[in-house]
Amino acid sequence: MTNKRGMLIIFSGPSGCGKGTVLSRFLAERTDTVLSVSATTRKPRPGDVDGVHYFFRTREEFERMIAANELLEYAEYSGNYYGTPAPYVEECLAAGKNVILEIEVQGALKVMQTCPDHVSIFVGVPSIGELERRLRGRGTEEEEVILRRMAAAKQELATAEKYQYLVINDDVDKAVLRLQAILEAESLRYNRMKTNFMEVMNNA
Amino acid sequence: MTNKRGMLIIFSGPSGCGKGTVLSRFLAERTDTVLSVSATTRKPRPGDVDGVHYFFRTREEFERMIAANELLEYAEYSGNYYGTPAPYVEECLAAGKNVILEIEVQGALKVMQTCPDHVSIFVGVPSIGELERRLRGRGTEEEEVILRRMAAAKQELATAEKYQYLVINDDVDKAVLRLQAILEAESLRYNRMKTNFMEVMNNA
Repeated sequence: MTNKRGMLIIFSGPSGCGKGTVLSRFLAERTDTVLSVSATTRKPRPGDVDGVHYFFRTREEFERMIAANELLEYAEYSGNYYGTPAPYVEECLAAGKNVILEIEVQGALKVMQTCPDHVSIFVGVPSIGELERRLRGRGTEEEEVILRRMAAAKQELATAEKYQYLVINDDVDKAVLRLQAILEAESLRYNRMKTNFMEVMNNA
Repeated sequence: MTNKRGMLIIFSGPSGCGKGTVLSRFLAERTDTVLSVSATTRKPRPGDVDGVHYFFRTREEFERMIAANELLEYAEYSGNYYGTPAPYVEECLAAGKNVILEIEVQGALKVMQTCPDHVSIFVGVPSIGELERRLRGRGTEEEEVILRRMAAAKQELATAEKYQYLVINDDVDKAVLRLQAILEAESLRYNRMKTNFMEVMNNA
């Protein structure tokens, strides 16, 4: 059968929801799915590999990418740009790889508009109380930081309704299985099957 | 957590696609999902149990159900009515059971309109040639019957685009897994999770 185009997967969740753990467990078992690599103007740190952890770009290069509309979304944090390079994502999708964008809510909403053919997944926590226990459990933060994170998390959780799917991370194994089911099901949507289906109709 | 409402699943496919086998294998493993029971005016045959195989109704009773809008869809074949009783389906859904309607395309299109909150799955064959081999493989049909069935199947396959999902039945085990993934993923849609999610937001 013809190589199917990969799926663009938007993946968000508040700090403390454990989405990083879920993703790395999920990706360890898949050869058909990659995590998107962001472009950034921040300086590489020891161990950072260009094209693996980030695409490191100068401010001029990044602004040229913005002007040329080469970013699916971008934002500026603490004086550095971060963004998702459209040509890189498109190359992966065309090669049949699913691409996961692990991305905060504002960027996610932007990509949902720009790329209507996406799958969007929000990772939630079993309860607000559990989120607070997880954030406090790290034991490294001051009260003010925790309260600020809790407020931000509540705000982020309220945006879950913008996403197609909600995966509650009450158990990492279960959350990984849920993610697998979503990707399997989405690959069976008629719109994504139709190229193959045209072949079905014509094959003896 | 609050008992979640069940999902209404519309399940169609041409004669010879093997959807009956896939369904019975799938249902054998699930206690949360039932096959809908149709109402009919045809006479019970030996072994038929009212309320299990069909709800057996007189013509007058059936026509009263039509007039009272108590059928999600109905049709007449060889002088007998067949239809899907809305109150029965609603009772199952309210009790948290998923309900599968194994239904032909015309009825399916009707239910899609009447019940917007549905999951629709079309079962296809790996190729038209394979369908023909399966139909001929039964070895019991005359050429004319086979040709008529092939023509009907091609027409039915062309309606696959009206369904959300396409499950190619190239292998029964795989088709059952695909069906499981679809139901799992659909249960994670934000709209179906939101009742539980409201509790998440309020739970300490």
